[in-house]
Amino acid sequence: MFTVKPWLAVIALVSVTGVASAASWTALPETAPAPANNPTTEAKIELGKMLFHDPRLSSTGTVSCSSCHSTLLGGDDNRRVSMGVHGQTGGRSAPTVWNAAFNEVQFWDGRAASLEEQAAGPVTNSIEMGMKSWKQVVARLKTIPGYQSAFDAAFGADSISKDNATKAIAAFERTLITPNSAYDKYVNGDKTAMTEQQIRGMNTFAETGCTSCHAAPLFSTTGVFMKFPTFKNNALRARYHFDKDKGRAEVTKKSEDNNLWKVPTLRNIALTAPYFHNGAVGTLDRAVNVMAKLQLNKNLSKEETADIVAFLNALTGEFPEHRNPHRLPTTPNTRFVTR
Amino acid sequence: MFTVKPWLAVIALVSVTGVASAASWTALPETAPAPANNPTTEAKIELGKMLFHDPRLSSTGTVSCSSCHSTLLGGDDNRRVSMGVHGQTGGRSAPTVWNAAFNEVQFWDGRAASLEEQAAGPVTNSIEMGMKSWKQVVARLKTIPGYQSAFDAAFGADSISKDNATKAIAAFERTLITPNSAYDKYVNGDKTAMTEQQIRGMNTFAETGCTSCHAAPLFSTTGVFMKFPTFKNNALRARYHFDKDKGRAEVTKKSEDNNLWKVPTLRNIALTAPYFHNGAVGTLDRAVNVMAKLQLNKNLSKEETADIVAFLNALTGEFPEHRNPHRLPTTPNTRFVTR
Repeated sequence: MFTVKPWLAVIALVSVTGVASAASWTALPETAPAPANNPTTEAKIELGKMLFHDPRLSSTGTVSCSSCHSTLLGGDDNRRVSMGVHGQTGGRSAPTVWNAAFNEVQFWDGRAASLEEQAAGPVTNSIEMGMKSWKQVVARLKTIPGYQSAFDAAFGADSISKDNATKAIAAFERTLITPNSAYDKYVNGDKTAMTEQQIRGMNTFAETGCTSCHAAPLFSTTGVFMKFPTFKNNALRARYHFDKDKGRAEVTKKSEDNNLWKVPTLRNIALTAPYFHNGAVGTLDRAVNVMAKLQLNKNLSKEETADIVAFLNALTGEFPEHRNPHRLPTTPNTRFVTR
Repeated sequence: MFTVKPWLAVIALVSVTGVASAASWTALPETAPAPANNPTTEAKIELGKMLFHDPRLSSTGTVSCSSCHSTLLGGDDNRRVSMGVHGQTGGRSAPTVWNAAFNEVQFWDGRAASLEEQAAGPVTNSIEMGMKSWKQVVARLKTIPGYQSAFDAAFGADSISKDNATKAIAAFERTLITPNSAYDKYVNGDKTAMTEQQIRGMNTFAETGCTSCHAAPLFSTTGVFMKFPTFKNNALRARYHFDKDKGRAEVTKKSEDNNLWKVPTLRNIALTAPYFHNGAVGTLDRAVNVMAKLQLNKNLSKEETADIVAFLNALTGEFPEHRNPHRLPTTPNTRFVTR
């Protein structure tokens, strides 16, 4: 397991007044880095692909990683907050799994330092996948002959464990990259890839100051947590209950971490409504306005908003092939989930 | 929509004492028949594939057809009874979608006369997918631009409707056929495809009388409902609560239909534990014993049971490729499910 890296600093939000330099508009890398202790292999990807899509990793046999992080959609579930076993719901909206491999930390509050660490969480969360413990998960996986052989292939004999299961899921997630968005094609030289409105929106996005946190290529910031909301606007804050969840402070229990959040990627943001950590805002144009007001203290015109939304739609990428397992290994002749 | 065809007769169960003739051991057809008013087309299959996997056809946006009829597994969910929206459960175990295209009627009680009619049911069942009405489903689909174009391609302009949605789902389901099981290879001439135990089990299966209802190639019976349980065995019937659900009589409200059921296919039966309409029996060997006792009044030896189970495992077929949509159409920039 990884441990959470110390954060360098919590930097103050700085408004950017000029257009970002051309150099800052970089395309999405097509491969994600893997940690030294979990090099990506085909066998791990195949195993992780099965585990990611397997509802039998939940107590009821009904909720898989893909239930809330669907790779048929925007890498989430399009719900305000996700729904786990027995119809339970929590307080936060599912972040997208697309390109999560590039995040330096995972979860809205950054409490996991790696994809491996993240993957361990929801499985034993009582309102998400509801397994009592990873010991129970491992025992369950050991009853499925096909998983035994898939773990063998990925990690060697007798290797079914929490560490290896989460390593395999992370290896699979490192393949969930969405390249070749209109934006990527544009910055790679195809000047016809974005519409005029999208190009205008790209400039407005930078001029408004959005790039100070949502920087290319991932349109996020690594290494720091950011405060949200930053500016006072009691009406907006009350309307959307943004202050209710203390974010990073829920993990650290330090008041200076109140309302600090990981900066989410804007890749495929058009596909992941509703928006914000609590899913309180239903549309992207409203989300853009709320961000401008609460983070930059700016009122965007209708045209500026529309242009930025058009640009954000240029960040929707291509979904890679072969994301689904051909079939899941079974427990022939025997029931699996008993409730 | 189809109407339920009148049933020819409810025939009495007849024990078969000899080995079934060689002619009765037929292989699974590789294509399923389509009704005259819904010829299968590629455009319908592609649309149906998306609809089948789309959780946004449920009130909560969390339950799709594939949630309970997973084509990664045995075409069901491996649960005793399925779990619908808000964690609700009903009284019956999900039948497999694999090869359902060959069933003459659908649902355990045969209340739907076609795949088209079946597909309409769970969507508006309050404990399954929970939509208030198909009017609501159609309204929801109309908000998704990608579905507009997919319906256009399959059915012509302005064609989003309950009838066309269920036709597309049915067209997709007609591709969910699992050929080339060990049994199919064996009866097609590859005498090495089944083990000696499986061949022995095949003969025992016929000699015991199982084929009188579970006849090749689907290992079911069309055109009639069968009584289950047939023979008195108060201990077994009480233990598994088999009599509680009146089956066909729940539809017809006629006492003569008490405990009549559609005969389920045994194709891929090894993958679909737990067993029976109420999912009360956890293992296939126990299910085989229960069937022999309650339907044929026979006590199978341990060896006979093991042989039949081995044979039933020879009915597990190959899963076709391209069962998953590449992506689902979205509502860009806008939330979809509001709760």
